[in-house]
Amino acid sequence: MSATESPETAAPADVTTVAVPLPGAAYDILIGPGLIGRAGAEIAARFPGVRVSVVTDEEVNHAHGEALVSSLGRAGLEPELIVVPAGEQSKCFAVLEDVVDQLLAQRRERGDLVVALGGGVIGDLAGFASAIVRRGMRFVQVPTSLLAQVDSSVGGKTGINTPHGKNLVGVFHQPSLVLADTDALASLPPRHMRAGYAEIAKYGLIDDAAFFGWLEQNHAGVLARGPELTEAVAASCRAKARVVVADEKETSGARALLNLGHTFGHALEAYCGYGERLIHGEGVAVGMAQAFRFSVEAGLCAPADAARVEAHLRAAGLPTRMSDIPGEMADDDTLVSLMAQDKKVKRGRLTFILARGIGQCFVAGDVAPDAIRSFLSRDRLL
Amino acid sequence: MSATESPETAAPADVTTVAVPLPGAAYDILIGPGLIGRAGAEIAARFPGVRVSVVTDEEVNHAHGEALVSSLGRAGLEPELIVVPAGEQSKCFAVLEDVVDQLLAQRRERGDLVVALGGGVIGDLAGFASAIVRRGMRFVQVPTSLLAQVDSSVGGKTGINTPHGKNLVGVFHQPSLVLADTDALASLPPRHMRAGYAEIAKYGLIDDAAFFGWLEQNHAGVLARGPELTEAVAASCRAKARVVVADEKETSGARALLNLGHTFGHALEAYCGYGERLIHGEGVAVGMAQAFRFSVEAGLCAPADAARVEAHLRAAGLPTRMSDIPGEMADDDTLVSLMAQDKKVKRGRLTFILARGIGQCFVAGDVAPDAIRSFLSRDRLL
Repeated sequence: MSATESPETAAPADVTTVAVPLPGAAYDILIGPGLIGRAGAEIAARFPGVRVSVVTDEEVNHAHGEALVSSLGRAGLEPELIVVPAGEQSKCFAVLEDVVDQLLAQRRERGDLVVALGGGVIGDLAGFASAIVRRGMRFVQVPTSLLAQVDSSVGGKTGINTPHGKNLVGVFHQPSLVLADTDALASLPPRHMRAGYAEIAKYGLIDDAAFFGWLEQNHAGVLARGPELTEAVAASCRAKARVVVADEKETSGARALLNLGHTFGHALEAYCGYGERLIHGEGVAVGMAQAFRFSVEAGLCAPADAARVEAHLRAAGLPTRMSDIPGEMADDDTLVSLMAQDKKVKRGRLTFILARGIGQCFVAGDVAPDAIRSFLSRDRLL
Repeated sequence: MSATESPETAAPADVTTVAVPLPGAAYDILIGPGLIGRAGAEIAARFPGVRVSVVTDEEVNHAHGEALVSSLGRAGLEPELIVVPAGEQSKCFAVLEDVVDQLLAQRRERGDLVVALGGGVIGDLAGFASAIVRRGMRFVQVPTSLLAQVDSSVGGKTGINTPHGKNLVGVFHQPSLVLADTDALASLPPRHMRAGYAEIAKYGLIDDAAFFGWLEQNHAGVLARGPELTEAVAASCRAKARVVVADEKETSGARALLNLGHTFGHALEAYCGYGERLIHGEGVAVGMAQAFRFSVEAGLCAPADAARVEAHLRAAGLPTRMSDIPGEMADDDTLVSLMAQDKKVKRGRLTFILARGIGQCFVAGDVAPDAIRSFLSRDRLL
C-alpha cells in the first residue's frame, strides 16, 4: 500500500460501525461520509484478492459510478460495471437474467464480489443475482438512498417482483459488508428523504419509545441532512441488526415486527402500481398510521398514541391516510385481496403488526379479513 | 385415517430409510417399491396441513403423474400439477419463471410443499423454484431416474443452466423428504440405467473400495433391476449423505470429491450439447476413467487400478474413452476452456478429483491447464 493511498485506509472518526453478529454470516455496516470514495480500500482490506463487479442503475451510475469504480480500481480489484435501467421495473426476471449473464460473462467466481450501488431496487436485484450465480457469490451493499441505508441493505432479503406481487421471488442472502455513505444522500430528492424517514420512525414505533421521542425532537435535522442524520441511520441499523440476528429467516416471528405498516402499505402500493403515485416509504407511513388506528378500534391502543403517530408522520411531511394518496382508491375487497397475496399469509388468515402503544408492537397472526374490510370502509372516509 | 387407507401408511419391510442429519435441515430418504402410490400418506404424516404442487415433465407425467396426484388427493393435500417439457432444455430461466408463476397463481404459501416428480432436470428445476418462491418453500423429491435416486435428489443442489454452462445458476436448498420409488425404474431405458450406474460406481471409487468390489460382483443384478438394486441405491444415498453432512455448501472440499469425473465429463457434455449424444452419466464414466488415467500419468496411481476401473465401467456397458463418443471431438484447447468455466475454478487454476487408487480419491485444487491439455492430446488417441 503506497503512502498516497493511506488517507483512504484510515477510517475517519465520523464513521460509525454497526456489527451484525449473525453466526456464520457476521458482517459490519459502516455509516458516514466519504465511504464511496474509500470503498476500494475498505473492500480490499477485508477481502484480499477478490475481483469486483458493480451492479447499479443508470441514474446512480451517473451520480456515483465513476467515484466507486475508480476507488475499486485504485485498490486493484479489477472492477467491471453492470448498468440496468433505473426504477422498480428492473426487479424482474428479464433484468435478473441479464445481470446473471453479465456476471458469468465477466467470469466472476464464487469467491469474487458483487457490489450493489444504488437504492433498494438495486440492492434487492444485485443481492439476488449474487445469491444464485454459481450457487452463491458474496456481495457488498453500497446503499445510496435513505430507505436502503436504514432498511433494505441490512438483513439479507433479496428478490424481484412478479405480476402476482412485490418481492414474491427471492432468497435470504446476507451481504458481507454494507457501506452507507451519508454523502450520497445530499442529492436525494426531499420526497425520497421523507419516504426513507418513514422506516426510521418505524423502529421507534416497534419497540423503542425513547427513539421515537428523540425523533419527535430531531426530525427536522434528520430530514435537513444535519448531524442528526448519521445518528438516526446508525440507530436504525442497530435496531434492524438486533431483529435480524434474533430471526434471520423470518421463522420465529421476531422479524415480522419489521413489517409494521407493510401489510396495509403493500396493498396500497400494489394498487397504485409501485410507481411515483405512492412510493414505498409513503405506503409504509399510511400503513403504520392505519395499523395504529386499527389497534385503537380493536381496543388495544390508546387513541392518543395513534394521534401522536399521525401527528409526527405529518410533521415529517408524510401521508397518513388513504385520502392523502392522489387518484382513485381501490375498494375494500380489492385491498384485502391484495393483502392475501402477502408472503406472510398462513392458511388464508392475515398477519398484521398491531400496537398496544408507541414502542409496543406485536405480531397478530390471525386477523380475520372481514375485520380489515370493515375497518377500511371507515378508515377511507378520513 | 380410515381402515381402507392403512395399507398405505404402514411402511413395508422392503423400504430402506437413510437419514441425512443436517443440523436444522435433517431429512429422510426412503428407498423401495411402491413409494409413489404411498406418497400422500408419507407426506401427510410428516407435514400436517400442507398443500402440494407437483412439478413434473410431460413424459414422467404420462408414466407416474396420475398415481402420484391421486395418492396426494386421497391424503387431502389438494394437489395441483405443473407440467413442463421433458429434457435438459427445461433447466432455463424461461421455464423457471413459468413454474414460479404457476406456484404463485396456485397461491402456495411458505409452509406448503413443492413435489418434484422426475429425473435430475425436474429435481433441479423444481427445487430451485421452491427455493425462491416467497424466499423459500419446502420441497419433496420423488426421483424417477436412477441418476436422480442415487445422486441429484440428495444434497440440496438446485439450479438451471445458462449459455455459459450447466448449473451455473442456482442455490443450495435441501429437500424435506426424498421418496425414491424403485418401481419407477422398471420402465427406465437401459441406457439411462447404465448412466445412473456410473454415479453408483463413483461412490466406490471415491472412498469405498469394498463397495466397488461388491459392484464388480453384482453390477449385472443392479442393472437388471434385481434385489441388488435397492441395496446399491441405499449404499449410494448413504455415501452421498455422509459427504453432504460433512460439507453442505461445498466449502471445505469434502463435497468436492463427489465431482470425480465431473470436470472432464462436464467439458465433454458441454461440447456435445447436453443431449442424447452423451448423457450425463456417460460423460461421468468417461471422466472417471480419464481421472484415473491422468492420475497414473502423474505417478499417483497404479496402472492396474485404472485398468480395473475401465474394465468395470465397460462391463457395465459404459463409455470410458473420448473415442467412444460418436461424432467429432473438440480439440484440446476447447475442452480446457470449457473446464475453466466450472463453478469450482479458483483464480484460473483447475480443480480435479484425482486418485491414489480405487477408493482413494482426493481434491487436487491447483492443476495447470497445460498438464490437462497435454494429457488430452494423448488420451484422445485411445
